[in-house]
Amino acid sequence: MEVLKISKQIYFDYQSAKPVDPRVIDAMFPYFSEKFGNPSSLHNVGDIATEALEKSRETIAKFIHANLAKEIIFTSGATESNNMAIIGYALKNMKKGKHIIISEIEHISIFNITKYLEMQGFEITKIPTDKYGKINLEKLKKKIKNDTILISIGYANNEIGTIQQIKEIGKISKEHNIAFHSDAVAAEGLIDIDVNRDNIDLLTLSSNDIYGPKGVGALYLRNGFRVNPIIIGGGQEGGLRSGSENVAGIVGMAKAAEICMNEMDEETNRLRKYQKRIIEEVLSKIPKSYLNGHPTDRLPNNIHFRFEAIEGESILLSLKDKNINITTGSACSSKTLEPSHTLIAIGLTHEEAHGSMEITMGRWTKQSDIDILLNELPSVVQRLREISPLWLKK
Amino acid sequence: MEVLKISKQIYFDYQSAKPVDPRVIDAMFPYFSEKFGNPSSLHNVGDIATEALEKSRETIAKFIHANLAKEIIFTSGATESNNMAIIGYALKNMKKGKHIIISEIEHISIFNITKYLEMQGFEITKIPTDKYGKINLEKLKKKIKNDTILISIGYANNEIGTIQQIKEIGKISKEHNIAFHSDAVAAEGLIDIDVNRDNIDLLTLSSNDIYGPKGVGALYLRNGFRVNPIIIGGGQEGGLRSGSENVAGIVGMAKAAEICMNEMDEETNRLRKYQKRIIEEVLSKIPKSYLNGHPTDRLPNNIHFRFEAIEGESILLSLKDKNINITTGSACSSKTLEPSHTLIAIGLTHEEAHGSMEITMGRWTKQSDIDILLNELPSVVQRLREISPLWLKK
Repeated sequence: MEVLKISKQIYFDYQSAKPVDPRVIDAMFPYFSEKFGNPSSLHNVGDIATEALEKSRETIAKFIHANLAKEIIFTSGATESNNMAIIGYALKNMKKGKHIIISEIEHISIFNITKYLEMQGFEITKIPTDKYGKINLEKLKKKIKNDTILISIGYANNEIGTIQQIKEIGKISKEHNIAFHSDAVAAEGLIDIDVNRDNIDLLTLSSNDIYGPKGVGALYLRNGFRVNPIIIGGGQEGGLRSGSENVAGIVGMAKAAEICMNEMDEETNRLRKYQKRIIEEVLSKIPKSYLNGHPTDRLPNNIHFRFEAIEGESILLSLKDKNINITTGSACSSKTLEPSHTLIAIGLTHEEAHGSMEITMGRWTKQSDIDILLNELPSVVQRLREISPLWLKK
Repeated sequence: MEVLKISKQIYFDYQSAKPVDPRVIDAMFPYFSEKFGNPSSLHNVGDIATEALEKSRETIAKFIHANLAKEIIFTSGATESNNMAIIGYALKNMKKGKHIIISEIEHISIFNITKYLEMQGFEITKIPTDKYGKINLEKLKKKIKNDTILISIGYANNEIGTIQQIKEIGKISKEHNIAFHSDAVAAEGLIDIDVNRDNIDLLTLSSNDIYGPKGVGALYLRNGFRVNPIIIGGGQEGGLRSGSENVAGIVGMAKAAEICMNEMDEETNRLRKYQKRIIEEVLSKIPKSYLNGHPTDRLPNNIHFRFEAIEGESILLSLKDKNINITTGSACSSKTLEPSHTLIAIGLTHEEAHGSMEITMGRWTKQSDIDILLNELPSVVQRLREISPLWLKK
């Protein structure tokens, strides 16, 4: 099997989906048809599954420097983990207060979750960011109230790649005795996440974002913190997540985490070099091109450009014809025509937001992919501008 | 790869977990690392994933004779589907009424879900069954009230294997304009399910129960019926189930359904022969042994015995030592010491319920497995009785 073998496709959208690492598939493989048992079963086949499940839990705990394996709850993915972390925490702890703080640039799943909580009588405050997408810590402190029970801020932004001051936010949360949740999906595997160093109480992880299988995720829930379950049933995962455990998928996620722990430094250095080259060449070769997000505090795999007078959608379609796969923003909202709320939040106009494109690289991004992108992108932008009324007006 | 290759294990607990069919793994395989895209992405890699997702949806619709592919919502498994079907339907339709009818022998996930709804002010009525586990249809009719909005009855029981009169229950529901949900997890792949013939409005399916991967399931939601989402986020699956779709898993589930459609008749005939042989030999060879559940209207893969004066747990452990894997009931509740609520509901005493064991067969059950079981079981029962005070008293 070859990764990314799809005929001639050049892939720059690792943020939306990642290939499963063949080493992960090898690790999962025995758990499909041989060691396929149900961990709740008391017989031998069940025991083998239980052992795999608990070993995987220990690996994921290690991956984020958690103290205890039991602080890891396996879920069906990041969205479910975010539901448990925010809705589950809010409903369990509403007697303490009904105020929750998020940022203006959270993932759409966090936005929709908090909209739901608003309908249940919770108050949601969205903290603004600076023009690079960094949370304004002073404003965060000012917005804390007596009834604030939860702060939920993504570890790094999935669109513009800006890395937050997680340690500082954790410190503020702890000082005010407020639970701190972070959706780490964009950052995991690229940054060494340490829930103790950063005072994180609830953390969302996804398997696919570290080259594990889709349909698996985890929630870190610090010992002593409590949430309501979102999915009710047979009482698996300590009663917090019912449903027979997806053992093969969980083993795959653990293997994916293990690979990241071993290879993170080397991989991020490699990606940083590609990132530097793409940013420098595009900004120098394409007039009126700009980098969205932070110039340095950004994920090593992320590049986000905007080009004056053309639309991101047109760039996407032009590159699609050349079998180059990029996106204009979060895959979850890419089928709507709304401009990205993240780009609006960092101060871009609707026109600027619509003129943006996102490049995310990953484990199988090769030097030759970058060559092809840098060869095609300037001419695509030029051609689109030649037919753009906005450009011609200038 | 060989299915069920685990060293010397003989497996009779297909109800708790099933090996993934190697043909399913072959079908899933390209979707891990090659065609790995996110269906929400607008580029070529995304388009390939979208195509696979929608083709799979059509296959699952065909599997249960649904009219429309869009009536299928993919989930992370049966428990989540049951949550959507019951909590999701109840909360969406509570203005019409707050009364829900289930049976006394539903799966524990249905029990816990309805307990949750009771705390939210819903009224739950549990219909009793006869001594074989068949719903009493007259009592069902009598319990229907003006504010009854939902009837949820499992297609077949996961413990004793009794098949319900689903068509009749569907007819009653329709006549009273009440939504009818059925958890079909124990029946799927063994019975040709037809949501139109049976007037089923919501149906729970699991992938692993038809030899697909774990961590995948589906909810059939008849066109025109509405539920609240359980997992909120990016708005996938028509807004009803957010989270990036587990495309490989979904493709696997569809392949599993396709295989079942082709092989169901032959497979059920094969299992019926094994079932007949086991029942006849055990009841004739082991004194004071009884069959739980219905003598004929039972799933072809299911056998459920009780033996006077010994405990199911002891049989399980004795057979475990001989590498024969059986269960005493639902895997989801097997780690509690409570007797099975299903066995109590069909009129067994606590002692009789504790003296029961369940055998479920499946696609890789061989004649030689049956030989070994029938060779070992009588002596295991005899030996346990020799040390049983209850037996010696007689």
